[in-house]
Amino acid sequence: MNNRMIAYIIGRILLTEAALLVLPLLVALLYGESPVPFLVPILLLALCGGAMGRKKPKSTALYARDGLAVVALAWICMSLFGALPFVLSGDIPNYVDAFFETVSGFTTTGSSILTEVESLSRGGLFWRSFTHWVGGMGVLVFVMAILPMNDGHGMHLMRAEVPGPTVGKLVSRMSDTAKILYSIYLVMTVVEIVLLLAGGMPLYDAAIHAFGTAGTGGFSCRNLSVGAYDSVYFDVVIGTFMLLFGVNFNLYYFLLIRRFRDVLHSEELRAYLLIVAASVLAIAVNISHLYQSFAASLRYAFFQVSSIITTTGYATTDFNTWPAFSKTILVILMFVGACAGSTGGGMKVARIVILAKTSFCDMRRMLHPNAVATVRFEGKPIGEKNIRSVHLFLTVYLIVFTISCLLLSLEEMDLVTTFTAVAACMNNIGPGLEAVGPVGNFSAFSPWAKVLLSFDMLVGRLEIFPMLLLFAPSIWKRKLTVRQGGRF
Amino acid sequence: MNNRMIAYIIGRILLTEAALLVLPLLVALLYGESPVPFLVPILLLALCGGAMGRKKPKSTALYARDGLAVVALAWICMSLFGALPFVLSGDIPNYVDAFFETVSGFTTTGSSILTEVESLSRGGLFWRSFTHWVGGMGVLVFVMAILPMNDGHGMHLMRAEVPGPTVGKLVSRMSDTAKILYSIYLVMTVVEIVLLLAGGMPLYDAAIHAFGTAGTGGFSCRNLSVGAYDSVYFDVVIGTFMLLFGVNFNLYYFLLIRRFRDVLHSEELRAYLLIVAASVLAIAVNISHLYQSFAASLRYAFFQVSSIITTTGYATTDFNTWPAFSKTILVILMFVGACAGSTGGGMKVARIVILAKTSFCDMRRMLHPNAVATVRFEGKPIGEKNIRSVHLFLTVYLIVFTISCLLLSLEEMDLVTTFTAVAACMNNIGPGLEAVGPVGNFSAFSPWAKVLLSFDMLVGRLEIFPMLLLFAPSIWKRKLTVRQGGRF
Repeated sequence: MNNRMIAYIIGRILLTEAALLVLPLLVALLYGESPVPFLVPILLLALCGGAMGRKKPKSTALYARDGLAVVALAWICMSLFGALPFVLSGDIPNYVDAFFETVSGFTTTGSSILTEVESLSRGGLFWRSFTHWVGGMGVLVFVMAILPMNDGHGMHLMRAEVPGPTVGKLVSRMSDTAKILYSIYLVMTVVEIVLLLAGGMPLYDAAIHAFGTAGTGGFSCRNLSVGAYDSVYFDVVIGTFMLLFGVNFNLYYFLLIRRFRDVLHSEELRAYLLIVAASVLAIAVNISHLYQSFAASLRYAFFQVSSIITTTGYATTDFNTWPAFSKTILVILMFVGACAGSTGGGMKVARIVILAKTSFCDMRRMLHPNAVATVRFEGKPIGEKNIRSVHLFLTVYLIVFTISCLLLSLEEMDLVTTFTAVAACMNNIGPGLEAVGPVGNFSAFSPWAKVLLSFDMLVGRLEIFPMLLLFAPSIWKRKLTVRQGGRF
Repeated sequence: MNNRMIAYIIGRILLTEAALLVLPLLVALLYGESPVPFLVPILLLALCGGAMGRKKPKSTALYARDGLAVVALAWICMSLFGALPFVLSGDIPNYVDAFFETVSGFTTTGSSILTEVESLSRGGLFWRSFTHWVGGMGVLVFVMAILPMNDGHGMHLMRAEVPGPTVGKLVSRMSDTAKILYSIYLVMTVVEIVLLLAGGMPLYDAAIHAFGTAGTGGFSCRNLSVGAYDSVYFDVVIGTFMLLFGVNFNLYYFLLIRRFRDVLHSEELRAYLLIVAASVLAIAVNISHLYQSFAASLRYAFFQVSSIITTTGYATTDFNTWPAFSKTILVILMFVGACAGSTGGGMKVARIVILAKTSFCDMRRMLHPNAVATVRFEGKPIGEKNIRSVHLFLTVYLIVFTISCLLLSLEEMDLVTTFTAVAACMNNIGPGLEAVGPVGNFSAFSPWAKVLLSFDMLVGRLEIFPMLLLFAPSIWKRKLTVRQGGRF
């Protein structure tokens, strides 16, 4: 492992975080609040980041496992420093709570330990939501967009940070790909802010909700989340933008370069829209007796489905009171998640489609053992290696999920709270059901449970392996050891 | 598909069922009850079975998919006829209820729609538990043991009926293997009956509970299940025998032929015992405040862990009132299940071990891309094909589980009831939590939900594919159609 290069990259990331903290600092000044809670972490980050990222090491070689380690360590460091403003401002005096909130922000989960948010400092509240925007597209992707880096190395980092089973370059240079992605992301966020302003939302609130939507995070500046505005217009704008940010960003690039065919024929996009449409309809019918008109239940169903499948987590109504059928659909959507290559979490629609198609193909082979069948996805055959890696993801995902539920059950909450708390954190959604439902929060958990759930959020955002492999003793060894014919 | 041969085998199975029904008929006569509820189905079975299984077809060829179809159809037919005695005796007047109860019996699930069982006719109660014993080792295995059959064809049937990822022959002849398995099964059942008699249990009760234990079913003749006797001796005997019947029967054969090494080094057995020991200890500590002494909590923990991991479902206490941690362990054990090649249900310990080892190996490969690593199980390397089939099982299992939960949630029960009802049925356990907990039952579900859960029980007992493939249109075609290069 190239420790120097890893330290160098993490140093660069800490410097970037220092720069990003200037924005909430300005907001704090604008609202006449003390700049100290932001100045201190900026100085600390500049010092640490400067020391680590001062000099580029001679060997810039970066292997796949280095990429995994960098991403995991970078996200942990960012969260450790990012929690400081909350503690220093007194918004969240407890450091573990502040860490949980920051991880929840960066991983675009949106789970909160706050029982109410409207009394927070304006600067703190802004930083809380801004972490969503930063974490949504990925910090390393951002660093890559602004720093020149060797393409091969960048690929490893990007693979480890961008969600989904397949990550490809849009253009030949990695840094250009990162720039394109971030530009699309920025433009879409600005468009949403403008649309929210047009509906009469104050600029501050519009920015907060656009950050939460863009990163598919879910933090709001209102205690009742988006429901506080009780406006059909805001529901439609935010609901639609959540769906848009849940789409693979490559498709937007294809739109820009007029490759409309690729967009229209995207298998994942079709599956995603089909799941959304079917869920909205099923829930709307199921909850129609709770609202005055079918249009109203359609409105709430659309917003909630869009919020949950994209793993944003905004709420316009307490879906905890919905019938069991609707709640079950929402819980299933929690695991499905958004499209690969989007800012959303969950298992990703692409993986679900690949799993379903592979299973169907394998079952056909039971009936027709001589049939030659290849599983195809997005028009191309999927290799055995890719299928295996999707199966690996599913298995390890289930193992981590099961162990997390078991450990969290030591908190002696009811089973639905335990199960959906883990589901909401690992899939980066935010609210679950019962005690952690849309009107509840995570404050009742003990400190160690908050650390466990923070780990789960990072596991979900970084797609398991970077976080898990931190526990492998061999990743800490300097030399790559190769055991031939290893026995397991 | 060789329809004539399939009809012939199913005919033979129906004749076997007619013969098996003579035993409860005798019990009914012994207790002075009407023999009619058994005579009518015996006559019907003899007629149908005789017509179908009268003449052996010229072509006895049986392909893998024929094996799957035979097993699925045979189990459905057996249950359809097996439900008649309950309806005719008036024990369960509603046919759907009786069908659910019979499927629950044959699949060794033990879920009941009865709110109390002690008022049932003695003959009916005996038949209810006897179905566990018949279904535990498998009806086709029984037919193979008593009927001479071509080895190659028998293998397909046995693969489809015996649980677990790997089914092998113990001896060169299939029918001899079946005979050995059934002999071990019979002897162990008799030993348990004798031990229960020695403890002072009446012969009728002893037989009922031995059937329930041997098949890992869980039907009792007492409303309070095994808890009704409140005896440490019975708890230990039944608890131990449940564990024994959850072990791969091949290991007992190895014991008989003095291959002790194979038994001692069985990886699955070790994992199974380790899981049991760890679960018993964790639960005993967790529930110690509920009982007078640690010995008492150890007793209840041992019995319940043994009952749930072997998917039997007997209860000596209402574990629904246990703390969340203990309940979560039990729910996890529901999915783990017993060993492959035992009478237990669930995903099987062997599959869990293979999944864990494969994932571990694949993750190592992420760190050391050049390392050559083979996954080994029971001392032998597992081929890619076997790993793929375990992954296929997991995926399809999850898909069927999710769809079942979604459909069952239309019943508008609470989420824990819905989730554990499907888990208890698909893993052939019996009781779940909340409304379907050890003191609850399945009577509150509507008829279509009972049919759905019956399907899930069959899916669980036959390990998914035979039941699912019944829905494939091509299985009903006479000619094997091979599509080259099929696209999915």
